[in-house]
Amino acid sequence: MLKKFEVSTTRRVEFVDITSLVRQTVAESGVLDGICVVYVPHTTCGITINEHADPDVVADIVNKLEELAPRNGRYAHIEGNSDAHIKASLVGSSQTIIIQGGKLLLGIWQGVFLCEFDGPRKRNVFIKVIAG
Amino acid sequence: MLKKFEVSTTRRVEFVDITSLVRQTVAESGVLDGICVVYVPHTTCGITINEHADPDVVADIVNKLEELAPRNGRYAHIEGNSDAHIKASLVGSSQTIIIQGGKLLLGIWQGVFLCEFDGPRKRNVFIKVIAG
Amino acid sequence: MLKKFEVSTTRRVEFVDITSLVRQTVAESGVLDGICVVYVPHTTCGITINEHADPDVVADIVNKLEELAPRNGRYAHIEGNSDAHIKASLVGSSQTIIIQGGKLLLGIWQGVFLCEFDGPRKRNVFIKVIAG
Repeated sequence: MLKKFEVSTTRRVEFVDITSLVRQTVAESGVLDGICVVYVPHTTCGITINEHADPDVVADIVNKLEELAPRNGRYAHIEGNSDAHIKASLVGSSQTIIIQGGKLLLGIWQGVFLCEFDGPRKRNVFIKVIAG
Repeated sequence: MLKKFEVSTTRRVEFVDITSLVRQTVAESGVLDGICVVYVPHTTCGITINEHADPDVVADIVNKLEELAPRNGRYAHIEGNSDAHIKASLVGSSQTIIIQGGKLLLGIWQGVFLCEFDGPRKRNVFIKVIAG
Repeated sequence: MLKKFEVSTTRRVEFVDITSLVRQTVAESGVLDGICVVYVPHTTCGITINEHADPDVVADIVNKLEELAPRNGRYAHIEGNSDAHIKASLVGSSQTIIIQGGKLLLGIWQGVFLCEFDGPRKRNVFIKVIAG
């Protein structure tokens, strides 16, 4: 089963919690055991798994990525968003999660985030469920 | 096939070689061709694949991650482990490895590591084998 | 279906666009729906997905990784390529891409790159297609 969702981001850099979209897709698929791949078809955007209880955790990750690859650094790419491309490769375009007994095997503190690095924009997320 | 292992870490930051757990799970599964997903359900812990011959390689990776996201940096999250969350997102919560002829397609120098960033603790690792 | 390709790199650090190898493997497999895992069995090499239209994007990613983990930094590993091992763990050994209707679900700007961090060398890339 493959589903596509549109996510609207509201700031240049923003982590959007999409855990409920992933859970909902796995539930709809009826798959009891398998894996789930969450993928963004964008080059200035990523997917990560991290704590979604305290929003300060995501804020600290965002700040550190900005420190490592500042928006206003010296880059060759003329569009002015090289920092976003770099952050996307550091975080990765997808995450794979295990499904057991019809449920995502996320840890109690884990959430799935779409990582916007060059918003605000409308972004697509693909969620693929594979039985096995 | 899905297996869960408990790994005890002994230091705050430590990469534990879990290659043998992964090999053993693939062997037990009887799957000849497919993929294997190694996943940690924690937000201050990751999975990476790198050299497991010379322990200095892992030491250099650990030191660099500490340099990029120092434990005592300025963070918002009050639990004092933001560096560990950041490192987890840089390294990733899982790795996917190909299975061919009943064996993991790891390179000769490659090992699979559980990356502890906020230990010592007892950690869970899930290993999922998918035929295909 | 599993295919192995050899990629020759020509510089110490170089991102080689292997998107056509991935597309060709998916087409040959005849798989209409599923996933594709692109994997390097090396510890000083990675796989990333990023923009393959403007080569300046890749140049900026390469430069930033060199800045974060300089070749001539202070490392313990005596082979002198610790920076390459670090970069490999930051970028990751594999990427997973969704297949829909027989095609890779890559975004319009996305390409798949083999990231050479310690070349020039002959490198292997494995591409595994799983139906589902």
